[in-house]
Amino acid sequence: MQNKQKNKKINNNPIGIFDSGFGGLTVMSAINKALPLENLIYFGDTAHVPYGTKSKDAVIKFSKEIVAFLIEHKVKLIVIACNTASAFALPILQKTLKVPVIGVIEPGSKAAVHVSKNKKIGVIGTEGTVQSGAYLKEINKIKKTNVYQQACPLFVPLVEEGWTNSEITNSIVQKYIKPLLNKNIDTLVLGCTHYPLLRKVLEKNINKNIVLIDSAKATTHEVKNVLNQKSLLADGKQKNFLKFYVSDNPKKFKTIGRRFFSKKISDVKKIEME
Amino acid sequence: MQNKQKNKKINNNPIGIFDSGFGGLTVMSAINKALPLENLIYFGDTAHVPYGTKSKDAVIKFSKEIVAFLIEHKVKLIVIACNTASAFALPILQKTLKVPVIGVIEPGSKAAVHVSKNKKIGVIGTEGTVQSGAYLKEINKIKKTNVYQQACPLFVPLVEEGWTNSEITNSIVQKYIKPLLNKNIDTLVLGCTHYPLLRKVLEKNINKNIVLIDSAKATTHEVKNVLNQKSLLADGKQKNFLKFYVSDNPKKFKTIGRRFFSKKISDVKKIEME
Repeated sequence: MQNKQKNKKINNNPIGIFDSGFGGLTVMSAINKALPLENLIYFGDTAHVPYGTKSKDAVIKFSKEIVAFLIEHKVKLIVIACNTASAFALPILQKTLKVPVIGVIEPGSKAAVHVSKNKKIGVIGTEGTVQSGAYLKEINKIKKTNVYQQACPLFVPLVEEGWTNSEITNSIVQKYIKPLLNKNIDTLVLGCTHYPLLRKVLEKNINKNIVLIDSAKATTHEVKNVLNQKSLLADGKQKNFLKFYVSDNPKKFKTIGRRFFSKKISDVKKIEME
Repeated sequence: MQNKQKNKKINNNPIGIFDSGFGGLTVMSAINKALPLENLIYFGDTAHVPYGTKSKDAVIKFSKEIVAFLIEHKVKLIVIACNTASAFALPILQKTLKVPVIGVIEPGSKAAVHVSKNKKIGVIGTEGTVQSGAYLKEINKIKKTNVYQQACPLFVPLVEEGWTNSEITNSIVQKYIKPLLNKNIDTLVLGCTHYPLLRKVLEKNINKNIVLIDSAKATTHEVKNVLNQKSLLADGKQKNFLKFYVSDNPKKFKTIGRRFFSKKISDVKKIEME
């Protein structure tokens, strides 16, 4: 068979990636850089964005609808590129789907435990992610650790407003981060896919010995591993594509999405969700 | 007939009020104070909140679904207690519904034109409201006026975070308001139902001669007029009620809603929207 190389199976079906809006594009960007032969389909649920303030039931419902859409597009693996959806919907999606499903919380937690020396880890995220306690549980499943959480509800609107480098953002970062610094953390998990855009202002306000964990990178590493283990890697022989779907406002997605994604977002289609 | 007083018809059916989330409670509060005999039903579309960043099509779709729910509850009048939904959905709802529909933009615009002496009016609102140009058009329909708009996307998350009295909010207000002050406005329309909670910090940052227009009050005045004209006022002889429905997170609505509403919010029901 043409699709076999050295007994290794090839699968050129796309990877499906979803998020409540733009944030997951930081994850898609990392996957695209590390695995340039893969076809990628992104779904941004911009009709319901943000997930961070929604209930568990609602986020599970939205996630199931998006996943049904991705499965129709014959995805071989699904990445939940959203911390809130990973916190709420990952277990149920893993149970019900035949394709592998990867969230951002487990890879981020693993990376944090790997890096932390004093076992004092800070986690910043949306209200939903923090209230779910998903990082707290996941990190402690790997190793008994002191985890200090802080919800930062203003970070997403600040990033979307484009104020990633302003004095105001600096003050807000200081206010949110202070209680974590008081706990003497040596590792800080960016528990929201918007937050990598605040990396510079965060770095300015923490000690140099504190390591920032960007779950986009950790998740990409996990995606690569799973594709490898399950012989699902693409060989690039089929035409390579990046597709973008949203549930609202494709035009806005194109414009703002540019800040989150490393390449130009050329074509965005709107899908009506029920 | 019992329902006639001095040839005046009475209607004890409820008034329906809707918004994307909590903000409309400032309008409901004003209506409840001015018309204490009226039964009120509130719907907060917390599964889709905020509307300010959503497209026109999406906001119209959400509004139609909510209105269908309110009509089922036999409302005699509908108040769109949300600037974005008023901007996008009012004309189509007024065309298709048999009951009167009142938005917040026309009453706010009337009040602003009435107050302004130099015909330089500032309008602050969400991205959606500002992009729709609804106040600009409405004000100029009444009288040719210079209208200066400013989108303030951080105001809603600041209010919901409860930071209505912080130094950070003060800086953000200054940044957003400055371009309007430079235009020498004498009237400022609070074009979002969350903004009355920022009244104090706004007043601190504008000249004393600038009048703030809170559309909750202007809208209540309009509601009273329409009920009067159409002989729809209640007489309070039926048991008086305030009912609250949301599309997500009733518990959170109860807690945060308290800041927006003058009375305790005792019972909130969740409704699944399709």
